[in-house]
Amino acid sequence: MDPGRLSLNQITVNSWSLEEAVEGCVRHGIGGIALWRDKIAAAGLDRAARLVQDAGLRVTSVCRGGMFTDPATPAAAVLADNRQAVEEAAALGADVLVLVCGALHDTDLPGARRRVRDGIEALLPHAAAAGVRLGVEPLHPMMIGVRSVVVSLAQALDLAEEFDDEHLGVVVDAYHVWWDPALAEQLTRAHGRVLGYHVSDWKASTSDLLLDRAVMGDGLIDLPWLSARVAETGFSGGVEVEVLSSALWAQDPDEVLRTVRRRFEDCV
Amino acid sequence: MDPGRLSLNQITVNSWSLEEAVEGCVRHGIGGIALWRDKIAAAGLDRAARLVQDAGLRVTSVCRGGMFTDPATPAAAVLADNRQAVEEAAALGADVLVLVCGALHDTDLPGARRRVRDGIEALLPHAAAAGVRLGVEPLHPMMIGVRSVVVSLAQALDLAEEFDDEHLGVVVDAYHVWWDPALAEQLTRAHGRVLGYHVSDWKASTSDLLLDRAVMGDGLIDLPWLSARVAETGFSGGVEVEVLSSALWAQDPDEVLRTVRRRFEDCV
Repeated sequence: MDPGRLSLNQITVNSWSLEEAVEGCVRHGIGGIALWRDKIAAAGLDRAARLVQDAGLRVTSVCRGGMFTDPATPAAAVLADNRQAVEEAAALGADVLVLVCGALHDTDLPGARRRVRDGIEALLPHAAAAGVRLGVEPLHPMMIGVRSVVVSLAQALDLAEEFDDEHLGVVVDAYHVWWDPALAEQLTRAHGRVLGYHVSDWKASTSDLLLDRAVMGDGLIDLPWLSARVAETGFSGGVEVEVLSSALWAQDPDEVLRTVRRRFEDCV
Repeated sequence: MDPGRLSLNQITVNSWSLEEAVEGCVRHGIGGIALWRDKIAAAGLDRAARLVQDAGLRVTSVCRGGMFTDPATPAAAVLADNRQAVEEAAALGADVLVLVCGALHDTDLPGARRRVRDGIEALLPHAAAAGVRLGVEPLHPMMIGVRSVVVSLAQALDLAEEFDDEHLGVVVDAYHVWWDPALAEQLTRAHGRVLGYHVSDWKASTSDLLLDRAVMGDGLIDLPWLSARVAETGFSGGVEVEVLSSALWAQDPDEVLRTVRRRFEDCV
């Protein structure tokens, strides 16, 4: 893919601070960045906003809002934290606030999914008021017990269609959705609703449920096919490289960025 | 669930030989057993058949046929091995031969899925001739690189509906399908096509993609709900307890069977 669309999701170079990640993007000619809230907090929101602006970087997303599902956390507390995330996304001029909707905490899966729906309903007016778009990211079903009860693109689109609001859409992460037999059909349905596209790769013999993703080209995902389908939805924004990998994190981040840039051109 | 429907999938007590597993079932008052082909081979097919018959056990399934997807293996060799599996299932009087359809070996996922379809088409006449029913078991999407490109009940039902043959159906394993937002809808569609039902549980913080299943009641799956939905499809056969767990395998198998039996009554 055209390297002009490359955005570095900073979790890919997790050892770097926000400032170091911004400098890395500039050094490697990467025009976009996606920021995580813990790194934003460590840098300070105002300083983070100044850093990306001075570097001329487009902020493709803030990771992450959501986490609606814990029955032990009052809905008001969940909303307060999500409003804070919206404010951060607004201050950074981010294209989208990614929603990772929260894990299952007991055996009541329909109940957890209702809490997701209700949490989005409560948050949406605040996002609209701040001019921030929310992107529901379906996560791989293997992460249901630790991250998200939203596990398929169809389910994320159900939410987007229910509210049918320009401030709510979906985020397509190749790693999370590539296995889905309904993927092509759901991407057709997703026209105009895709607010973000993330790439990495699935290792044939994945050894960890969270931190064993591969760089594009080192796995089983047909990324050129998926990129073409995502383009057909009308999405033309920055494409995030988001590789959660303990093996990658152990490498020199500058070397990682060189690989990422090359693979983005050759394999996405 | 009524313990009269309990069937021990012998992988749950993997350290036991087929003979030991049969004796264990008798000792614990378990009326059904599911056999794996490596254990059948170790015991010898004729002896295995005699052992289960003498013990009065119902063989709920043979695990497994399938593995249609490797482009390096000629279709004739795949068919030959599957015909062997059909003969074993027939000799054992098994309710169903479970099909684990095979992993993705490259980035051509549609191609792998076509090989599954074609493999089933080639095998089905032989199964019908032998009076053996084939059950397509969708596996969890996280196993796509090591076990199966059939990853959802919808996809398994697409295959069953395409051939629409009484010798082809689906196997519902709670562990593999419980996360699916379309599960209830697909179980409605599955009426008359469910040939097997397997139970175990999903640990909140699963640490291994293959061998970290929990005993029923120790995880997040609403098994009573699922059991009721499976019953509504018309399935009334033996219910297999299939727990692939390195932790469980390290325990005394008799203790495991006591736990399995109790949890089957209380949590399934």
